[in-house]
Amino acid sequence: MQESTTVPAAFTEDAAYAAGCAWVDGAYLPIADARIPITDTGFTRSDCTYDVVAVWHGRFFRLDAHLARFERSWQALRLSPPLDRDGMAAVLHECVRRSGLRDAYVEMVVTRGSPPPGVRDPRRFANRFYAFAIPYVWIATPEVQARGLHLAIARDVVRIPPQAVDPRVKNFHWADLTRGLFEAYEREAETVVLLNAAGEVTEGPGFNLFAWCDDVLWTPAAGVLEGITRDTVLALAAEHGLATRVAAFDAALLARADEIFLTSTAGGIMPVSRLDGRPVGDGRPGEITRALSDNYWRAHDEPRWSTPVQY
Amino acid sequence: MQESTTVPAAFTEDAAYAAGCAWVDGAYLPIADARIPITDTGFTRSDCTYDVVAVWHGRFFRLDAHLARFERSWQALRLSPPLDRDGMAAVLHECVRRSGLRDAYVEMVVTRGSPPPGVRDPRRFANRFYAFAIPYVWIATPEVQARGLHLAIARDVVRIPPQAVDPRVKNFHWADLTRGLFEAYEREAETVVLLNAAGEVTEGPGFNLFAWCDDVLWTPAAGVLEGITRDTVLALAAEHGLATRVAAFDAALLARADEIFLTSTAGGIMPVSRLDGRPVGDGRPGEITRALSDNYWRAHDEPRWSTPVQY
Repeated sequence: MQESTTVPAAFTEDAAYAAGCAWVDGAYLPIADARIPITDTGFTRSDCTYDVVAVWHGRFFRLDAHLARFERSWQALRLSPPLDRDGMAAVLHECVRRSGLRDAYVEMVVTRGSPPPGVRDPRRFANRFYAFAIPYVWIATPEVQARGLHLAIARDVVRIPPQAVDPRVKNFHWADLTRGLFEAYEREAETVVLLNAAGEVTEGPGFNLFAWCDDVLWTPAAGVLEGITRDTVLALAAEHGLATRVAAFDAALLARADEIFLTSTAGGIMPVSRLDGRPVGDGRPGEITRALSDNYWRAHDEPRWSTPVQY
Repeated sequence: MQESTTVPAAFTEDAAYAAGCAWVDGAYLPIADARIPITDTGFTRSDCTYDVVAVWHGRFFRLDAHLARFERSWQALRLSPPLDRDGMAAVLHECVRRSGLRDAYVEMVVTRGSPPPGVRDPRRFANRFYAFAIPYVWIATPEVQARGLHLAIARDVVRIPPQAVDPRVKNFHWADLTRGLFEAYEREAETVVLLNAAGEVTEGPGFNLFAWCDDVLWTPAAGVLEGITRDTVLALAAEHGLATRVAAFDAALLARADEIFLTSTAGGIMPVSRLDGRPVGDGRPGEITRALSDNYWRAHDEPRWSTPVQY
């Protein structure tokens, strides 16, 4: 993992944006002042989709891939954002530029919007686009990643099935994940992965999961977000000649895995060193995980994967 | 159904609130100005619970029952709102009083709140309470109710199962319901009811469902919100000597039902006159439905069910 760098607030466009900059209703605002209408059904029905792209060392990582997935998501929900893809990209650049952040967590959301008075039909709402850039978010900090995370497998909750909510359309329906997280805390773990009703491994709060087992790198095929970091790991693994398998598997495979790691735009490739209180492998981040993580962070500086922010 | 009445804006505390009044962060605001932080995980994780109580003819309908359910909901999510039950009730009264509305839709929400910088652990967020009163909302207007609704049974989506998200904790996880609603529109119906994975009837966007079949009034037992209107209907049915059955049933029972109706705080007891394009009974709102609806609206004026707003 590489050092994070931040331009001091004095060098930014405006110090008011140093904690983050948002775009709401056509205006740029300091993140602390950024608010959405309480009547937006993006809130009151969670009728929205979002995406998150990282900025690292002043460069967007795979911005086009994120914008393309985001477009598939809002189209699936039959949303019509007020900006096209180029317009959105321009807003994201400007949010980061105003914040002055070199390492940022950049979120974009399209919501259904607020019902006009007396109207219940969501086809008649004016859809909204919001975006913000804040300092880079770590699901697990570099310090925690150095020793590896303690992961619990949820027992009291299952993942929302794709037949109800399509997890490929990135969404805020996190009640199952949050319930799992509280269960993990009770069992003195740090985060959680959920199974589906058939007992197959799915995903956790904000991440996909990989297991290195029988000299193959496994990740669940279905019932999960098709994460950009997950996709990047599959590409890097292929480049390094690692066998990969995108398929269903159950908790028994995790229990005998040599290595486990979690992937997210908010934290990268995060080693798991304990599973339900027992060590994974020798109880330290594994070699495969470390090699992929090094390559992942290196990729953030490479023009084939990343594009400079227009500061 | 009774006539709706509204005090003209000139008689309200402040005409600015005539379209509705909200309570956000300790201040009362006109509904159009009421906003929540874009970083509140009530939005970005839908990590929140809510309740809706009606005001009709200047009286709250079953306010205590709503506040009690709301308390069970936020306790289930391990939320700690900044106001106690009496404090919340006072805010709800004041929102209605400022709006001057005699018939209102009054919503209260507790959210997990915004992450402090660098914090991911939801146990460390300061929880928030929001509330607002707006003009009474009709899922189906009185005009539509007079002829009955056209209801579709969703085929392309199932209800989120209780093993993932407990529907008794009233929540904004509506992606399945919204997906079903769009499916209904495509099939030229007006609203939708979802089945679970076992093919059992559950609920629709904002309502419970009842069927009058074989001289018994049926409503699903599990996998649904325990609606206050549903509870009121069961009580009124018992008072009138109708047999009721709270149990699982499938779409076949709906297909042969003599009457079907939907229940919600936002619309009351709403007759269904067509199911997937075919008439229910004789294709007009039924006698049982009409009798229950009359009693339901009458109950809104009765002190045993309702309490006057402190205008």
